[in-house]
Amino acid sequence: SDEELTTPDVQGYDFRGEFDFQKMLEAYATTGFQATQLAEAIDIAEQMQDADATIYLTCTSNIISSGLREVVAYLVREGYVDVLITTAGSLAEDVIKTAKPFKMGEWDADEAALREQGINRLGNLFVPSDRYVWLEEYLYDFFEEFFADEKVRTPTAFARELGETLDDPNSILKQAADNDVPVYCPALTDAEVGNFLYYYRQGYDSEVGIEILDDYDSLIEDGMLADTTGLIAVGGGVPKHHAIMTNLFRGGADYVVYISTGMEGDGSLSGAPPNEAVSWGKIKDDERTNYTQVEAEATLVFPLLVAGAFSE
Amino acid sequence: SDEELTTPDVQGYDFRGEFDFQKMLEAYATTGFQATQLAEAIDIAEQMQDADATIYLTCTSNIISSGLREVVAYLVREGYVDVLITTAGSLAEDVIKTAKPFKMGEWDADEAALREQGINRLGNLFVPSDRYVWLEEYLYDFFEEFFADEKVRTPTAFARELGETLDDPNSILKQAADNDVPVYCPALTDAEVGNFLYYYRQGYDSEVGIEILDDYDSLIEDGMLADTTGLIAVGGGVPKHHAIMTNLFRGGADYVVYISTGMEGDGSLSGAPPNEAVSWGKIKDDERTNYTQVEAEATLVFPLLVAGAFSE
Amino acid sequence: SDEELTTPDVQGYDFRGEFDFQKMLEAYATTGFQATQLAEAIDIAEQMQDADATIYLTCTSNIISSGLREVVAYLVREGYVDVLITTAGSLAEDVIKTAKPFKMGEWDADEAALREQGINRLGNLFVPSDRYVWLEEYLYDFFEEFFADEKVRTPTAFARELGETLDDPNSILKQAADNDVPVYCPALTDAEVGNFLYYYRQGYDSEVGIEILDDYDSLIEDGMLADTTGLIAVGGGVPKHHAIMTNLFRGGADYVVYISTGMEGDGSLSGAPPNEAVSWGKIKDDERTNYTQVEAEATLVFPLLVAGAFSE
Amino acid sequence: SDEELTTPDVQGYDFRGEFDFQKMLEAYATTGFQATQLAEAIDIAEQMQDADATIYLTCTSNIISSGLREVVAYLVREGYVDVLITTAGSLAEDVIKTAKPFKMGEWDADEAALREQGINRLGNLFVPSDRYVWLEEYLYDFFEEFFADEKVRTPTAFARELGETLDDPNSILKQAADNDVPVYCPALTDAEVGNFLYYYRQGYDSEVGIEILDDYDSLIEDGMLADTTGLIAVGGGVPKHHAIMTNLFRGGADYVVYISTGMEGDGSLSGAPPNEAVSWGKIKDDERTNYTQVEAEATLVFPLLVAGAFSE
Ligand SMILES: NC(=O)c1ccc[n+]([C@@H]2O[C@H](COP(=O)([O-])OP(=O)(O)OC[C@H]3O[C@@H](n4cnc5c(N)ncnc54)[C@H](O)[C@@H]3O)[C@@H](O)[C@H]2O)c1
Ligand SMILES: NC(=O)c1ccc[n+]([C@@H]2O[C@H](COP(=O)([O-])OP(=O)(O)OC[C@H]3O[C@@H](n4cnc5c(N)ncnc54)[C@H](O)[C@@H]3O)[C@@H](O)[C@H]2O)c1
Repeated sequence: SDEELTTPDVQGYDFRGEFDFQKMLEAYATTGFQATQLAEAIDIAEQMQDADATIYLTCTSNIISSGLREVVAYLVREGYVDVLITTAGSLAEDVIKTAKPFKMGEWDADEAALREQGINRLGNLFVPSDRYVWLEEYLYDFFEEFFADEKVRTPTAFARELGETLDDPNSILKQAADNDVPVYCPALTDAEVGNFLYYYRQGYDSEVGIEILDDYDSLIEDGMLADTTGLIAVGGGVPKHHAIMTNLFRGGADYVVYISTGMEGDGSLSGAPPNEAVSWGKIKDDERTNYTQVEAEATLVFPLLVAGAFSE
Repeated sequence: SDEELTTPDVQGYDFRGEFDFQKMLEAYATTGFQATQLAEAIDIAEQMQDADATIYLTCTSNIISSGLREVVAYLVREGYVDVLITTAGSLAEDVIKTAKPFKMGEWDADEAALREQGINRLGNLFVPSDRYVWLEEYLYDFFEEFFADEKVRTPTAFARELGETLDDPNSILKQAADNDVPVYCPALTDAEVGNFLYYYRQGYDSEVGIEILDDYDSLIEDGMLADTTGLIAVGGGVPKHHAIMTNLFRGGADYVVYISTGMEGDGSLSGAPPNEAVSWGKIKDDERTNYTQVEAEATLVFPLLVAGAFSE
Repeated sequence: SDEELTTPDVQGYDFRGEFDFQKMLEAYATTGFQATQLAEAIDIAEQMQDADATIYLTCTSNIISSGLREVVAYLVREGYVDVLITTAGSLAEDVIKTAKPFKMGEWDADEAALREQGINRLGNLFVPSDRYVWLEEYLYDFFEEFFADEKVRTPTAFARELGETLDDPNSILKQAADNDVPVYCPALTDAEVGNFLYYYRQGYDSEVGIEILDDYDSLIEDGMLADTTGLIAVGGGVPKHHAIMTNLFRGGADYVVYISTGMEGDGSLSGAPPNEAVSWGKIKDDERTNYTQVEAEATLVFPLLVAGAFSE
Repeated sequence: SDEELTTPDVQGYDFRGEFDFQKMLEAYATTGFQATQLAEAIDIAEQMQDADATIYLTCTSNIISSGLREVVAYLVREGYVDVLITTAGSLAEDVIKTAKPFKMGEWDADEAALREQGINRLGNLFVPSDRYVWLEEYLYDFFEEFFADEKVRTPTAFARELGETLDDPNSILKQAADNDVPVYCPALTDAEVGNFLYYYRQGYDSEVGIEILDDYDSLIEDGMLADTTGLIAVGGGVPKHHAIMTNLFRGGADYVVYISTGMEGDGSLSGAPPNEAVSWGKIKDDERTNYTQVEAEATLVFPLLVAGAFSE
């Protein structure tokens, strides 16, 4: 009854003998379930590069809270990524980390005790409050420069000019600034950046503003000017949607990889698998497999994707 | 060994005799697992009202895609909600629905076939493309008015003035406009609203803009002016974070209910349970139970929460 | 473009006016996402009854730990359920609850402290250790009777004869015994029942045994003798698989409702949606919608399913 | 404010220069979220070995459906595992794979079409029906031998004697038989093994039986005789609970690693994190970190755990 079944055999990695990481990763393709999805993601990411696609990387803020920040900075520095889209927490935290590290913490901490010690919890990471005191001062100086000539600026300008002030090679903003990679962040207010802008307007200059239509135009045009596009969405939310929505203008993204813990059954954008986006024309429908999703927490699989597709 | 255990017995609803909805809902309190969480949520929502709290409702766009739109409109109309925070899809879809309904669909549809028929899939809902053609025209007329006097406007002004043009009692924008409930939406570009603003700028007036700092100031002040605040976050993302972040300025929200499918273990803001926000000072730490989370898809439980806490 | 779309409009419940529970439940059908799944589940459960199907209810042990125990006992007592399939914890806990209640507890308790106080945690429920001391004694007396005539018995005989000793109308075992509903439980050892059988064999009679093939034969024959079958699987695991696997022998179950938090993408049986079982012939493929799944935690939705389909 | 914070800095892997797999895995420890959980799991698995613990590996059936079968067989062959606990599907599928492979498939296949072609879908794997025809014949011969001398046998004897008939080095049953590793499987009927036992009893010998108390005694004693125990639970269900429950008799397991997609909030055993088991005394409470959980689909992370802790 299986005459027609010409697909590969299910077969896992053979651990006997010397361990070979690349072979193990290849064996993921025939291991099944999400391992196969990851192998497919690596394959699609390689196709993006072979096709010389304009690559968009989107990520949620917690990715930058985590040690994946350094991995994202690497991708930008090496020229693998052409457009970054993220949320405001990423910007705040990337700047902090250029001066003071986040610390390893615990999921089940006593929140009231932490509050008293001035320690903020972010999953299993701890962020002492002094980080934000430092950030406030850093940003005040920056705001003065940033709004000096023009009162109303854009999030991409904010990210770029802020990045230029930094000198940590592991900073995503610095690498983006140095490598001409725009960083889109429409909801720029939704993090400490927004809080300090509030204080700045209250205390120094009530007329400064952030305008978001200009950036949206540029993002649409990034897509329309590109011959081929590839999206890697790490997590969901606004960044993921911003990437697929603006790719609609060019008839859909050509190559797409999602890494997500989202649940399809809640009807959310974050949980929507790539095929939903095909019906909208946000992802191209193709004969070949040009999109996939890995259902996994990103810190587990994003380094493997990078090791498999974006490293020597 | 259980001398100290003075908590209630675990005991479910007794279905014998005539069915009594309120009794069934009360039995959730002693049913355990998420039923108990829902009963706690109802209790906290009632406390918000007893304390005359300023109530923030935050929701993701798919809530408005679904039949919960009518429930949110009801809450605004009846004066139960004082501040709405959402994402851009909510605005686009609320307007469409004043003229043309969304249709029931299927999860497992053939995406390429849908694409050919001009049907967009959103979970198990279908949205024919003509809705967006209609929306584009509707918005063009609106944009002209909206930007007539001032070129640079805010998302709350956008929502309010757009709401004023509508006359469907089930519209959240109309009810918000009529009842002076501000609708915050920092990432206003991230939906068809943004696309049509792009076209508008290309075709009619390249100088119009959306500025987001003004709104953030107001949202912070909504919180600082309130004696007591209560948050109901339906889903996560920017809306949830916007509400807790700005409540930081007043020393934390007093009452909080989250309804979420998010996963705590991914370190995301969407999956973060309320106690994480306590460490940041975004939610007040209290002797009494003043916050809870229901881990569930919202269409299942939000009507129960409203039936339990916000209806006669 | 939507000429062909003859499906209902997406439309939620209208909370204005007097609250009507049945109308609210009906509105779930057009609310979308999981609400629609629940409405479909209610509809299929009603079809089971109209078709006079032999109804299998399968549940995991935690369902009996929770207040859903009383709901399951109700379904058995009222004759709505013909076959019960569960895991061993259900039996142990159902018996305990006839004498001593479980208590409401907390998710985030200090485990070491609980351990010292002799309190076992089960999600947000607490079970003081004295319950198990009591159970041990109760079962010893029962074992003596149970193994008096035959040394090697079956799980169904165990459940039935144990049920006959109980006199709590909320006991699933008592109701099953009284109403001739077999209770299948192949992994009978995997709970305190197994532990006390171990002690009993060590201390009293090393020759007693539990044989599981006889029961499997009966379960297969339950299915083959039935004209029509309906399955309601609350949670996954062995009980769910036992029901669908034995329905294979009759060409598949006719009506199927799953309630589950399982994840499809892990390839697990627990997460597998009904359509996977169609490929195996475990569920019949039908023109009409004869199966569905609600992705939700059961304590939230099972009472609604019962209220909608199994109550006056 | 962070004087006390002596935990490591959050810091991801540095991809510059030549890729070093072990260094990347080490960097998981300070990457945060689930990466840190995985690093902890590797560390605990190494501690198990340093302490010369009796290691229990538990897995659900789909693990053996996937390419992790070969990885489990490797662990048994190399002597890393002392006790295996699983469900019945594992036994059926391991035997089939000694003769005929499972094939790679697709999640979104047309189920009715598959049914007609005689292809069974298991997540994204395909299993042509001829596999089960072959298995039926193979097992008939085996049953004859197996029940020849004794009519009532145990699951462990079944697994061992079946394993002795096989000669595929990638077979978990063969490696277990060769290396004296008992394979516990209390719900032995709940897979095709049970179906063919049914036919065998109908057609050949109605008196054969499977008794499960003997095995439970042995499993308890495996634990009581061990100086130190370590558990690795891949997935949940009966296997996971069987391991922790029988470790109760020795005062709890010493080292525990869970890999699971289960949800804590549903109160299920599969979703219960290790600390819940501490309150029951199923896991020892220790000063050091002696247990952890990785929230992930196993095919993604189990190979990494093995590469990090169980390979040269
Ligand atoms: N560190 C922070 O997380 C942080 C800090 C300050 C402000 N904020 C703000 O909170 C708001 C909401 O955050 P967001 O939009 O960045 O996204 P989010 O954290 O709400 O995540 C959105 C979705 O992405 C997926 N996801 C998130 N983390 C994942 C992971 N590790 N692996 C796989 N999938 C994952 C999940 O499905 C999640 O529901 C934003 O405005 C942001 O600026 C966040
Ligand atoms: N191939 C099969 O899955 C198969 C075949 C035949 C029979 N069966 C039978 O079905 C019944 C139920 O199956 P089960 O008890 O083996 O477990 P299951 O498949 O129902 O899984 C139980 C839980 O383990 C976790 N889990 C499963 N797969 C995982 C993964 N890949 N990664 C991380 N976590 C995972 C999930 O939380 C899941 O809910 C058993 O009696 C079994 O014999 C299964």
